[in-house]
Order: sequence, then structure tokens, then C-alpha cells
Amino acid sequence: MTIEDKFEKLGIDNAPGQENLQSSVVLDLRGEVLKGPAVDFSHGDVDAHPPAPDSFELFLEGVKEGGGQAYTPYRGKKKILEQVAQKLEAFANVPVDPDKNLILTAGTQGALFLAMGSSVVMSDKVAIVEPDYFANRKIVEFLGGEMIAIPMNYEDTDIGSGIDLKALEAAFREGVKVFLFSNPNNPVGCVYSYDEIYKIASLARKYNVTVIIDELYSRQIYPGVVYTHLCAQKHIPDNLITIIGPSKTESLSGYRLGAAFGTDVMIKRMEKLQAIMTLRCSGYNQAVFGAWFNEPEGWLIDRVRRHQDIRDAILKVLSRYDGVSAKPTEGGSYLFITIPELDVSLHQFIRIAREMAQVTVTPGTEFGPQYLHQFRINFSQDKDKAVAAIERLMILMERYRKLSEKQKS
Amino acid sequence: MTIEDKFEKLGIDNAPGQENLQSSVVLDLRGEVLKGPAVDFSHGDVDAHPPAPDSFELFLEGVKEGGGQAYTPYRGKKKILEQVAQKLEAFANVPVDPDKNLILTAGTQGALFLAMGSSVVMSDKVAIVEPDYFANRKIVEFLGGEMIAIPMNYEDTDIGSGIDLKALEAAFREGVKVFLFSNPNNPVGCVYSYDEIYKIASLARKYNVTVIIDELYSRQIYPGVVYTHLCAQKHIPDNLITIIGPSKTESLSGYRLGAAFGTDVMIKRMEKLQAIMTLRCSGYNQAVFGAWFNEPEGWLIDRVRRHQDIRDAILKVLSRYDGVSAKPTEGGSYLFITIPELDVSLHQFIRIAREMAQVTVTPGTEFGPQYLHQFRINFSQDKDKAVAAIERLMILMERYRKLSEKQKS
Repeated sequence: MTIEDKFEKLGIDNAPGQENLQSSVVLDLRGEVLKGPAVDFSHGDVDAHPPAPDSFELFLEGVKEGGGQAYTPYRGKKKILEQVAQKLEAFANVPVDPDKNLILTAGTQGALFLAMGSSVVMSDKVAIVEPDYFANRKIVEFLGGEMIAIPMNYEDTDIGSGIDLKALEAAFREGVKVFLFSNPNNPVGCVYSYDEIYKIASLARKYNVTVIIDELYSRQIYPGVVYTHLCAQKHIPDNLITIIGPSKTESLSGYRLGAAFGTDVMIKRMEKLQAIMTLRCSGYNQAVFGAWFNEPEGWLIDRVRRHQDIRDAILKVLSRYDGVSAKPTEGGSYLFITIPELDVSLHQFIRIAREMAQVTVTPGTEFGPQYLHQFRINFSQDKDKAVAAIERLMILMERYRKLSEKQKS
Repeated sequence: MTIEDKFEKLGIDNAPGQENLQSSVVLDLRGEVLKGPAVDFSHGDVDAHPPAPDSFELFLEGVKEGGGQAYTPYRGKKKILEQVAQKLEAFANVPVDPDKNLILTAGTQGALFLAMGSSVVMSDKVAIVEPDYFANRKIVEFLGGEMIAIPMNYEDTDIGSGIDLKALEAAFREGVKVFLFSNPNNPVGCVYSYDEIYKIASLARKYNVTVIIDELYSRQIYPGVVYTHLCAQKHIPDNLITIIGPSKTESLSGYRLGAAFGTDVMIKRMEKLQAIMTLRCSGYNQAVFGAWFNEPEGWLIDRVRRHQDIRDAILKVLSRYDGVSAKPTEGGSYLFITIPELDVSLHQFIRIAREMAQVTVTPGTEFGPQYLHQFRINFSQDKDKAVAAIERLMILMERYRKLSEKQKS
């Protein structure tokens, strides 16, 4: 394999935030431009939902501390590891030894790459849920692993994610070494049920599969939904890493902070990899971890309530359109929206939407090749602007609905 | 190969900054503790040589800018790419198109990992200079490449690095795909001569070898030394990436800022890899690039002069001891110090020095397995403390000098 072949599969032109790099193509533009404030649903708006309080003040303290904060061990500064370990213990209800079970990383993305890079070698079979976070499949490609797709029938289930546990066991039986998934799921926003998590943990233990679980959105759970931490179960796999960070719910993405906790031998390997990858999570930035799980009373409840409002307002708009559907988010701020057959391809429609309606969304194909009628939105936005943008998107969509579809409706 | 085998070779216990993670061993402690302020020569002291002016103010501006600064394209924010490209063009005297030839990274270490990860596939032969930066060899191991060591006879040359150009050509002829080296060299601090750089560029072009050159220290060149940018030569290899950043000379390591510039197809691959590795150089931190190559008049000259002073004061101490030598640094702030045969191993002596003299240095073996009588110091320290620390280190060394050596002296 050449380096060109290796990177051929790692396309990013359609990845969130990269839209401006797309080459210009002639688009089938229909009707008038739909005016309104631009909304970029590819990521959250940290101006509409500002960073957790005191984050900047903590950064300033870090800079004032000087050398001791600029240069930390690769895992992170001891004092901060201790603070974070204590918070994660309380949150996930699992022992976290700051000397053994924890590493601070360059964002949750950094934690994901480290965990995978420390688990997968060439030709290893890796089970990946579809749909799931776009980087998961690309990291497997980069590491030379063989991806085994595990279907998640999220539309057909009322409780949990709808992951196909039979397919998962069959994959494990056929020699999968590593299973990586996000909970809450990105892009659907569904939360795995207790039964699903219990079964995944048992299967991984039975078949000696390493589990990497991305819990990035696990603090932002909507009322009535039960969240289950896999790491806190009685029977867990021998090799387990849980990934989390303050980039989303806490709007601290600009600082690139992430954490991974779990099996000590895996954390050791991750530290070795971090030493040659980015050395450490930026030294001064590490001080900002102090704001995490340390927000003022009521801050998280308010954050969840405001996002629930936005979610419901968007779902209300979508419900007026035939052939459009989305599973109500249970955790996090994503909606994975299914649209009907159009005269143009999904990717064309998404480019048209940017041009005609100033709306940016992420194509479903980033989460699995079969999602040709889906796109993802991050609704962590200004509510009024977001609702207006979805209205424009739906009006625009109607201009492209396939004739046979139009007749049906 | 298992994941355990893969990580076996990536030891970091002796890496700079990791010393506290070493397991306790019984040491042969001789004589009284040598008292004095602790000095950690494993990295520079950013309290003694503070960050470039305005860096924190620029960070603050970045935070105030909000979402547009928190979420940038993977390569970096357009405006900042443009600024940095302009500065690098002027510095290296080579065209740098901000849209094609440049990526901002999570520190220079991040740039190095991206460049190597975008160039090396399993079983590729990679030429690495010995001695050279410790991560170079480890990245080759991680990527499954085969390392070909190129000797650098730095002690036997007055001009340039003393790289063995015949060994380099032989390695290229035998199928080396990638050549990675640092200039100024880390750990020796020597600068490659014009003839060496010209020859390396020509050979790489002739044998179609990808070149990755780490110029991290190329701004801090001492008077009388000529620095040659490989990228600015007339005949350069088709695939060339130059790496640089403000972590050292500018003391901005706490922000984790790096940059890589060069061949557009390589930058594209590096962007794809960054998308799944750390997403981007921390958004707010990118604003701090504004301080780079933008220091007040005289700042760099003063910086170089102060480091030259420290270098010379340390060399003066070393010159009093038989069997101790170091090539005077030509660029950067490293000295690679050779010591005589001792009663204890190099690694034992280094641990003894931490305990008995409060002095931390990096063993030569981090830069090549044959450097069993060398250690590296970063002399970007408070001058008086650094000189006193070296005095203590030498006094301590005498207590362990082998008897036959003692008789000679």
C-alpha cells in the first residue's frame, strides 16, 4: 500500500467545518435566495451558549503559574489529574486513580486517536457502529485495521439505541479486537439502554474485546432518559477506555481539552503515544479543567432545559413536512434528520442550502456510506436563528422534492 | 505483531520531563548532598526567559472573538494562516501559499507526527540521523517503518554537522522513502553547513526521497554561524515539509503552537490526519501566532546574546574537567555533553544527580542507543542557577569517576 492509497479513504471535504474548502461546482439553483441570518449547524455556537463560567480566569492563572504549567508530564499536571479523577469518579461512579487510570489530551478527539492508536495494529478487526462519529471509521483506516460495521436500527426502537446485538456478537465471535462507539450516539443523539450496555459489557468480556466508549455528551441528558456508564458495571471488559471532555456541553472547544480514563496498561500506552504526537494537552489550557464539573448550582440544568427547548422547536418545524423525520435527541445536541428523495443528490442539496439559505449541515454519509437521505445538525445555536434556518431549509427542500414524492403529498 | 510488542519500543521513562515517573531503585549515593537551587535542564525555563511580548494579550483577543476563533478549519484560521505564511516567506526566503502550503498544528511535535504519519507506511525505510531528537525514532516505530541510522560525526568536524553523506546516499540508494532530521540538530546544537544542505537536497531529489526537516531552533543562531534553509535551495526534493514553531526561542511552549510548510499534496494529507488526531491547533491559542516573528526590535538579538552568555559560562566550567567535552552550540539552547567512564551507569548517574544535586538532565540514549557517555542539557535557564548546577554536577561526577580514569588525571 502506498501513502496515497492510505489517505485516499480519509476524505474531509464534507467534514464539519471544512465546507469552505469544497471546490466550486455548478449547482441547480431554484427560485429566490431565502434570506436570514446564517447558521452553521456543523458545530455548536459558543457565542449563543458561552463557555462555562471562570474558564478564562483559570487560563490566566495557568499562564501566571509559568513554567510549572507550561511543561507538564505527558499525562498532564499532577494536581489537575487529581482534580479531574475525583470529578470523574463521582460522575461515573467508578474508581479513577489519578496516577494510573487517567490521561489529559488535546481535546476528546485527541483522546480518541490515542485510545485507538494504542489498541489497533495492522489488520485488526475493529467493530464500528453505523451511524457513528465520522472520525471513528477514518482512524481505523489510518491504523490499517479492518472495519466491521455494526448496524444501529435507531428508527425502529423506542428504548435505547437499537444496536444490533446479534451482529455485534457475531463480529466478536469472528475475532474483533476492538469495539468503539459513542454514547450518547453521534449523530443520532440516542442513549444506549441499560440492557444494551450490560450486554455489550458482557459480550466484550466474554470475547476479550477492548472497548473504547466515547461519552463526550454524557452530561447533557434530557429528562426521563436513563444514562448508564459502561465502566461502572459489575462485569466489564479487561481493556476499557472511556473518553469525555468539556468541548460540547461546556462550550470549551476553543481550549482543546479532553480526558480518557480506564485500564492502566492502556493509559500507559496512550501516554507513550501522546509523547510522540502532541507531547501533552496544551500546558496553560490544562488549568481550564478546573471549570469542568465545577459549574455554579443550576448551570447544567439550565443548559439542558435551553437545549431541550431548541430541540423541540426544531422538531415541531420538521413535523410539518412529509417524509422528514428525526428521532428526538436523548442526550447531546444533535439531530439526525431524514429527508425524502430529491431531484439532486444529498451533497448537492447541502451545497445549495449553503448558497441559497445560508445554512450549513453535515451530510449523513460522514456517519456511514448508506446515509444518503440524512444530515446531521448540532442545534446548540441561538434558538430563533436556528428555527428560522430550519424553516428556510425545509422551504428550499420542497423545491427539490422528486415529482413522484410531490404527488404523494 | 501485537499492540504490546508495538509499544514495547516506545519507552518514555527517560524522556525529558518524565523523570518523576521512574520507579525507585537503590542508588549508590556517595558523600554529602550538594545543596543549591534545583535546575531542570530537560527543558527551557520560561520563567527565566519569559514568553514573547503580547502573547497573552493576543490569546485574550482570541477568546473575545468567540466562536469564529474556537472553531477553525483543520488547517487553521484563514487570517492567521495568511499572517504566518507571510512571515515564513520572509524568514526562509521561499514562497508559501497560505491556501496550499501551510498547516498550523498542536505544537511542533504535532507537526512532526502529522508529517511522518502522512509520509510513512508500514515497512517503509526511513533515514534518521544519530544523534537526533528522541521522538523521531519512536514515530518511525509507531508507524511500522524500518529505521536506517545515519551517523553524524559532530565531534570530528569544524564546519557543519558532520553528517555521513556517503552513508546517507547508500541508504537512499537502498530504497529509503523518507529522511527526517533537525537543523539546528537536537541534541548537539550544531548547524548543517551550506554544502551539507545542498548535498542532502540534491540526493533526495535524485533518489526521490521525501524530506522532513525540523527547523524548530532556526531563529536562534549564534553570531558567525551561517544557517541554510533547505527549502530555499534551487534544487529541492518533490516532497518536502519544513517544521517550525514558537515553543523554544519564543518560550511559547505552554500554548502548543506549531507550523509545517511545504509541498501541497503533503499538507493535504497532514490536514486529513489532523482531522482525526486533534482536529486543529487549539482555536483560541492560534491567535497567539500573532506574536511570532513580530517581536519588538532587538528582542531576538538580546535573546541570542543572553543564551550565548549562558552557553559560554557553562562551557567554561566543563573545560576544567578531564574527559568532559561538548561542541559549542551553533543554534538553539542545547549542549550534548560527553563525560568519562564512571563506576555507575549513565542512567544511574543521572538519577543520582537528581537526588544529590537537584539537577535533571536527559540521557544520551534518548538520541541514539550508542550515547552511553552523553547527556543533553537545555541551557535556556537562569544563568547563575544553571552555572551553579553544572558545577555541582561536575563535583558529583568526580565522586564516580572510574579509578583508572582518576589515575590518568
